[in-house]
Amino acid sequence: MKSGISAAVIKRLPRYYRHLDELMESGVDRISSGELSKRMNITASQIRQDLNNFGGFGQQGYGYNVQYLYDEIGKLLGIDKQHGMIIVGAGNLGKAIANYGNFEKRGFIIKALFDSNTELHGKEIRGAKVYGLDKLEEFVAENDIEIAAIAIPKNYAPEVAERLIKCGVKAFWNFAHTDLNLNNDIIVENVHLSESLMRLSYRLHSTEERNG
Amino acid sequence: MKSGISAAVIKRLPRYYRHLDELMESGVDRISSGELSKRMNITASQIRQDLNNFGGFGQQGYGYNVQYLYDEIGKLLGIDKQHGMIIVGAGNLGKAIANYGNFEKRGFIIKALFDSNTELHGKEIRGAKVYGLDKLEEFVAENDIEIAAIAIPKNYAPEVAERLIKCGVKAFWNFAHTDLNLNNDIIVENVHLSESLMRLSYRLHSTEERNG
Repeated sequence: MKSGISAAVIKRLPRYYRHLDELMESGVDRISSGELSKRMNITASQIRQDLNNFGGFGQQGYGYNVQYLYDEIGKLLGIDKQHGMIIVGAGNLGKAIANYGNFEKRGFIIKALFDSNTELHGKEIRGAKVYGLDKLEEFVAENDIEIAAIAIPKNYAPEVAERLIKCGVKAFWNFAHTDLNLNNDIIVENVHLSESLMRLSYRLHSTEERNG
Repeated sequence: MKSGISAAVIKRLPRYYRHLDELMESGVDRISSGELSKRMNITASQIRQDLNNFGGFGQQGYGYNVQYLYDEIGKLLGIDKQHGMIIVGAGNLGKAIANYGNFEKRGFIIKALFDSNTELHGKEIRGAKVYGLDKLEEFVAENDIEIAAIAIPKNYAPEVAERLIKCGVKAFWNFAHTDLNLNNDIIVENVHLSESLMRLSYRLHSTEERNG
């Protein structure tokens, strides 16, 4: 079912999912591709084309069932299952991630945080305990951890990633300001905040030049 | 000079910039497209092609001057200038952004934070004071603020954005879990963390299916 779906479509799926979630929160049961189009600021034909990749979830002239579409996209995204997750780094960023309640709702269960700062050890953030980095291997072995969020300085990130791979972590959500050049079997999703800010700056700069 | 440069190239520029920065930190003066290619995990011909968009910064067989390339890309990205910035939201995420020293080095000067939590008012984060949200207009009017980072819950984000646009903010770095549907003149760079995590989950899920 998923073979041959383009990267661009997959990139849009989480956005569909978020909008459908918002629609459910507002009590909307059905939505036409036209209404969804206005809301998401993409064309209705793009939406129909995207959703047709998955067999098409709507009936002509009748719109999409919001809950059904939400559930189906959730399955495609693999968030109908639970994923055990740890956060390496319990600084502001690590804490921000741990405090973000929405992740849990989507099946990402944060089981622990790890930090070199001994003052944080034993503290709890939304029910997840902070441990020392020396406890990494033991914890990952004893709990079912698939994903590690990396929220530590770039100099320490590659070494920690290598340690985690050895004990079976399969995916990294990398906030460290460096590329983790890992084995191809390992999934890395980067969130490079400075790069995002530089893209903003580029756009600001080119707008200013256009406007003289 | 910048007209006709594709979005894909522009998207890669911050990544070049980051790698060149790392090279300078390690004391490297010159680098060939081959070496840069290995480091960045993209092909050497892609690199030559990308950099040729800007007139080509290298000489055949002689490699690129790291500092020169860094400076030129910096100019293209508009980070040779300073940009005044505020952060709305002084929770963990807002604090994480404020504490990220690298932004300053790149010309993004965080001048203040704003939060509804009165306990935070008057506190300083890396030299930037936290104010109440009622001080937004006054502060933006008196200081030269181009960019606002939005790190507050999604329900409050659109209203705050409208207020900021009225006092002249031109660009939003949006961490709120919603799209800010703003006027086309306004630049919005979104960092939707859940969407990034869902993309990771999708890749994890499809790898698992492939491996049975």
